[in-house]
Amino acid sequence: MAELKNFTKRSDNYSQWYNELVIKADLAEQSAVRGCMVIKPYGYAIWEKMQHELDRMFKETGHQNAYFPLLIPKSFLSREADHVEGFAKECAVVTHHRLKNDPNGGGVIVDPEARLEEELIIRPTSETIIWNTYKNWINSYRDLPILVNQWANVMRWEMRTRMFLRTAEFLWQEGHTAHATREEAEEEAIRMLNVYADFAENFMAVPVVKGVKSPNERFAGALDTYTIEAMMQDGKALQSGTSHFLGQNFAKAFDVTFMNKNNKPEYVWATSWGVSTRLMGALIMTHSDDNGLVLPPRLAPIQVVIVPIFKNEDDLAAISEKIEPVIKELRNKGISVKFDSADNKRPGFKFADYEVKGVPVRLALGKRDLENGTVELMRRDTLTKETLPIDGIAEHIEKELEDIQNSLFNRALQYRKDHTISVDTYEEFKEKIEDGGFIMAHWDGTPETEEKIKEETKATIRCIPFDGDKTPGVCMVTGKPSAQRVVFARAY
Amino acid sequence: MAELKNFTKRSDNYSQWYNELVIKADLAEQSAVRGCMVIKPYGYAIWEKMQHELDRMFKETGHQNAYFPLLIPKSFLSREADHVEGFAKECAVVTHHRLKNDPNGGGVIVDPEARLEEELIIRPTSETIIWNTYKNWINSYRDLPILVNQWANVMRWEMRTRMFLRTAEFLWQEGHTAHATREEAEEEAIRMLNVYADFAENFMAVPVVKGVKSPNERFAGALDTYTIEAMMQDGKALQSGTSHFLGQNFAKAFDVTFMNKNNKPEYVWATSWGVSTRLMGALIMTHSDDNGLVLPPRLAPIQVVIVPIFKNEDDLAAISEKIEPVIKELRNKGISVKFDSADNKRPGFKFADYEVKGVPVRLALGKRDLENGTVELMRRDTLTKETLPIDGIAEHIEKELEDIQNSLFNRALQYRKDHTISVDTYEEFKEKIEDGGFIMAHWDGTPETEEKIKEETKATIRCIPFDGDKTPGVCMVTGKPSAQRVVFARAY
Repeated sequence: MAELKNFTKRSDNYSQWYNELVIKADLAEQSAVRGCMVIKPYGYAIWEKMQHELDRMFKETGHQNAYFPLLIPKSFLSREADHVEGFAKECAVVTHHRLKNDPNGGGVIVDPEARLEEELIIRPTSETIIWNTYKNWINSYRDLPILVNQWANVMRWEMRTRMFLRTAEFLWQEGHTAHATREEAEEEAIRMLNVYADFAENFMAVPVVKGVKSPNERFAGALDTYTIEAMMQDGKALQSGTSHFLGQNFAKAFDVTFMNKNNKPEYVWATSWGVSTRLMGALIMTHSDDNGLVLPPRLAPIQVVIVPIFKNEDDLAAISEKIEPVIKELRNKGISVKFDSADNKRPGFKFADYEVKGVPVRLALGKRDLENGTVELMRRDTLTKETLPIDGIAEHIEKELEDIQNSLFNRALQYRKDHTISVDTYEEFKEKIEDGGFIMAHWDGTPETEEKIKEETKATIRCIPFDGDKTPGVCMVTGKPSAQRVVFARAY
Repeated sequence: MAELKNFTKRSDNYSQWYNELVIKADLAEQSAVRGCMVIKPYGYAIWEKMQHELDRMFKETGHQNAYFPLLIPKSFLSREADHVEGFAKECAVVTHHRLKNDPNGGGVIVDPEARLEEELIIRPTSETIIWNTYKNWINSYRDLPILVNQWANVMRWEMRTRMFLRTAEFLWQEGHTAHATREEAEEEAIRMLNVYADFAENFMAVPVVKGVKSPNERFAGALDTYTIEAMMQDGKALQSGTSHFLGQNFAKAFDVTFMNKNNKPEYVWATSWGVSTRLMGALIMTHSDDNGLVLPPRLAPIQVVIVPIFKNEDDLAAISEKIEPVIKELRNKGISVKFDSADNKRPGFKFADYEVKGVPVRLALGKRDLENGTVELMRRDTLTKETLPIDGIAEHIEKELEDIQNSLFNRALQYRKDHTISVDTYEEFKEKIEDGGFIMAHWDGTPETEEKIKEETKATIRCIPFDGDKTPGVCMVTGKPSAQRVVFARAY
């Protein structure tokens, strides 16, 4: 594991550990364009698995995909007052549509004569262009609901970027739905939050707290923002997906009305919801360890790697013959297997490489295993090795993968429980917040108090949780009444 | 079919027929942004099926997906002389990264203080940013080949746009591979051309001519461009996919070298290849008729639609009970079925709608069919109806879909054969080119002659075909020697 010698430990510098891991596991790298990353094939393969499952879940809940333009006229952004306030500050602006050769020999320059009449913005999110489109799609209640999703790239000109967590360009999906009633739109927003929670917990093995954002943390233009919040191994929160009840704000901004069953015009009700390549950050930071990436089997591009230990071609042929039926059996079970018989890398190098890349199960077998009818199995999550009979190994692996998936979730859940506390005084809060984790505390419901806490402690309200203790109390800062405890944390 | 009353016939105005069809079949529409379209759910569902098959084929030939930045520094474009010449003229240029409120009350304006040091271009194609990245990925022959593909949006500021055929923004895939030898890169370029031809013929049911482009029609920066050319129903050619042998041009421009087996540095050899949402245009224009879209079953989002004819809930219940086992059987065969029991649209409206949308097989059944144990089947390609016993209908449909797929291909192939002629004199060429179709003629191999033909007849050399007659002759224009006939046509 020579490659890993200089790998920073989580306990030494969590942030540096993360940055190094993204590079060493071959997930992504910085590009030549400020704040934009290159997602490398191994990282992209994980993202594809995420996309595949999410897309299936969206379709199962009745959604269809479509595609809307990358560029948004500047004037569209201004239509919804909160929305422009939230997104105009950091955006890429297209002003010209041509380059030309500098007549003074200065190479290629922007052609000043090719200035656009109206500047175009690279979409930071697509509510405006989509609601401008929906105006033409909706006349009557019969045209509703519209349940559309888009897989796309978006751009927000962030000042401080980190790979996957916050990049100028990122990949995401954005659902945009249109409904005839407030109730139906609210139900849809909650339905999609539940889809996100289901995906996070059952595929990513990342436990999440579901809840509603405080007004300060709402999406620009929403009446309510629902969120799933995960806890990373440094105790910080990561907002992993949001679903917005937009009310009639965008319908009013773009004048989208429908004739209801009584033939009266009404504004259309809206939701939007999205998850992004940020989920990659959540996945990495929830499970990985000082040896590298740890992947839940359901999202691992390679679930089982088989490394033969051989000195010559005859050894390799004998091992291959023995292992071929196992590979076939595993693949018939829908398990993805890589048999790495490359002879230009030593087994030790391969072991280290697949460990860094988080392959859930590794099999190794050499000449002695052949004689004994055995194989060595290593679990990436626990790093434990076992020598097992090769007979029946496929069934064993199938169960092992299931067990890894579950135990990763349980480990993360236990971690969150161990790092979630209730606090009643602001003094204690200020002390405990330094240790990281989630703090359940009473808050008086005002933006002023939330702002004060944020300024003084860098902690924000992650959400007002749907589940858990609903006992009323008094705000830890002002002593005013509080309906229930809310989740505070420092966040990514 | 009231909806279709105003549908232009192909024979009256092919171009207008196409534009109307795209709208009426609910595939796409113009957006508020000049030259950019909205791909609607039904159109996007077809594109998704295309993506799914192509992606599988790319992976089966050893390729992996990755993702590179949307924005390209202006200076990168200038590195490869032909490339900048080909792409700088029409591109979207990002010059600023912030909007702000106009202090004079003029709404939201571009913040002049947020000017970028170097302008960024929205990718028209990604060779430059990718080869700048590959520089860091490649040191030794052991790092080669790199076989990477990207699914992405790109932008070319076209002056005249048409939905799917030529839009400012379009969706595509772009493969970018790096190799240790010239031979390997050339083989890769041909391999991917064959993948495209396989996809076009076996999934789109669109016959294509494979060949190499003349120098005039080469991709900007390539040593050779291979192409598949299809013939539309108006006799015009549509370039449907291209694969480029890039030589060492981009390796030289971005200084990408590798140590070969003899430990000597060499420049890396490259290919790139792409197909785009333009394929949607090819699909539409090859098969569709005056009644609307005609889809080959392998790319149809709905392969079979079942329309019950009922007057009341009891009728519908009886029909549903009878048809449920058929639906189940069809789905078990992997056939996508829609049972449209909506009671707010009349059967005639549904028939017309699915006809316009090109659903390959329609079943209809009413009360009398129940009594007789029959069902009415309509094939969209031939518009023929048959009354068949409901027993064994699933097997029948399975064969029918296969037959539709094959007969669409054969019909298109016959059309191409009927509209491909050989011509020996330029006089005859000028006369015949007015009828459309492909003209096989001798050409002296010079750009000057090709240019003259283009200016005088609007016809271009679509390709020098790989297959077919290789008999030498003399150029129809100059009388100079010609190695073989080439394909001339007017093109989209």
